[in-house]
This record gives sequence, C-alpha cells and structure tokens, in this order.
Amino acid sequence: MADCVFCGIVAGSVPAFMIASEDAGLAFLDLRPVFPGHTLVIPRDHIETLPDLPKEQIPGYFGLVQRVAVAVQAGLEADGTFVAMNNTVSQSVPHLHTHVVPRRRKDGLRGFFWPRTKYGADLEATEIAEKIRAALPAS
Amino acid sequence: MADCVFCGIVAGSVPAFMIASEDAGLAFLDLRPVFPGHTLVIPRDHIETLPDLPKEQIPGYFGLVQRVAVAVQAGLEADGTFVAMNNTVSQSVPHLHTHVVPRRRKDGLRGFFWPRTKYGADLEATEIAEKIRAALPAS
Ligand SMILES: [Zn+2]
Ligand SMILES: [Zn+2]
Repeated sequence: MADCVFCGIVAGSVPAFMIASEDAGLAFLDLRPVFPGHTLVIPRDHIETLPDLPKEQIPGYFGLVQRVAVAVQAGLEADGTFVAMNNTVSQSVPHLHTHVVPRRRKDGLRGFFWPRTKYGADLEATEIAEKIRAALPAS
Repeated sequence: MADCVFCGIVAGSVPAFMIASEDAGLAFLDLRPVFPGHTLVIPRDHIETLPDLPKEQIPGYFGLVQRVAVAVQAGLEADGTFVAMNNTVSQSVPHLHTHVVPRRRKDGLRGFFWPRTKYGADLEATEIAEKIRAALPAS
C-alpha cells in the first residue's frame, strides 16, 4: 500500500533500524520504544490484522516473532519480554505488527496495565463462552 | 506439572469456561477479565514461555490464537482485539498463555498503556539493533 509506512520499510523507501529481513517478515526497532530494544515484527505483505494473516504464513511469521523474543531477551540481557499486538482498535498502523518489548524484574511496569473485572455470576461467563465458541472458525 | 493451575485445566481437575480444547491447545475464559470474553490460549504441554515453545507447535498454537481472536471479535460483536503474552516478567502463571481481549472503539482504554521514550541518538539505536541481531537464532 502506497501510504503505509511499514510497506515503505519493506520496500526500502522508509529507513529503519533493522533486526531481521526475511521471507517470513521484517523486524525493526520501534522509534518510540517502551524500553530501548522494543522491536516490531511485521509480515512482508500488507496484511492488516491477525485475523487477516493467511494460514500458510502463521508458521513463518510467528516463528520470527519467537526468534525475536529470544534475541531481544538474550541480546539485551533482559529478564523476559512482553509480546503484544493490537488488532483494529488502538492499532496505530493498519499493517499487522507484533510488539516485542524487553522486560526486567524491576523495570517499574505493572504486569497487567488495565483494571480487571469479574463475572457477575457463572451464568454470565457461561453465556459469553457460548457466544465465543459459536464463532470459532474450523481449524 | 502437579501444582500448575493451567495443567490442572488441561487434566480436567480445575474447572474452566472452555472455548476450545484441541490437540494444539486449550482456550478458556480468564476469570479476572479486562472485559467479559477475555480469553487465554495455552498449549497442552507445560511450556513456560514463548521461547520454550517447540518449533513444531508454532503453527497449531498460533493458529488457535488466531481463530480465538476471530471468535472473540465476531462472537461478542467487538471492534477488535488485544492479543498479548508476558514472558517470565509479570507472568502470573509459568505456563505459556496468550491473552485475547475484546476491544471496542470507545471502551475507554488507552491504546498503549505504558509511557514511551525516545532514542537519544541514532548511535544508541544502531548499537541496540546490533545487539539484538547478534542474538537472533537461526530460522
Ligand atoms: Zn503495509
Ligand atoms: Zn502447566
């Protein structure tokens, strides 16, 4: 897509601090990192969200995400990683990207960043689970 | 693992609101959801983190994560999803689990929940990228 900044990185017309450039995808530094080394992993094709990723690209793409998670942790001597993607809502660039953020035990971040709630009753959870199950695509 | 609550769900000794139970993994409701329908996807085996997931399990596991993302969004008529995992740091249960959280355009959550920083100079980013690249496992 002509006006997609991540397609621009794939095409080489937008500069990036590259970690990996492979058939399965690219990995490069996020320039507004949560912590230095915060990396984005994208597929080469302009695929908008995880649901849009063709099934045959899943092994290569998530294989790259896994290797980047290993590399971010080992290369920066971190204690762990946070691996996340926003699909549609809060997605700043509509080209699938997985954030890989190095984490340290005393980095000051709270583990889960959003308030949690509870189900009012088992019935509510049962009904919600049924709605999701009914929408689950075949494997 | 005897004292792992997610292994207990796999074994059937811990109850859960189940979304899917397949060879590739299980999906069930998080009982402290960010929003109702917040689902966890786990591998059947006691695998601690993403780096520990055997390569041959990547297609099945992330295929299930993708299908759950489709189902959470469609089944609950959400606008998108947040898909995330904590590896080691902030990981509440040491059995790999990917959160799939339904998101809506006006759900009140900020897109990225943690403050962002900047690289002091290109040199810093270049050096960080080199450290990560040097630690990238072969594909
Ligand atoms: Zn694009
Ligand atoms: Zn376990």
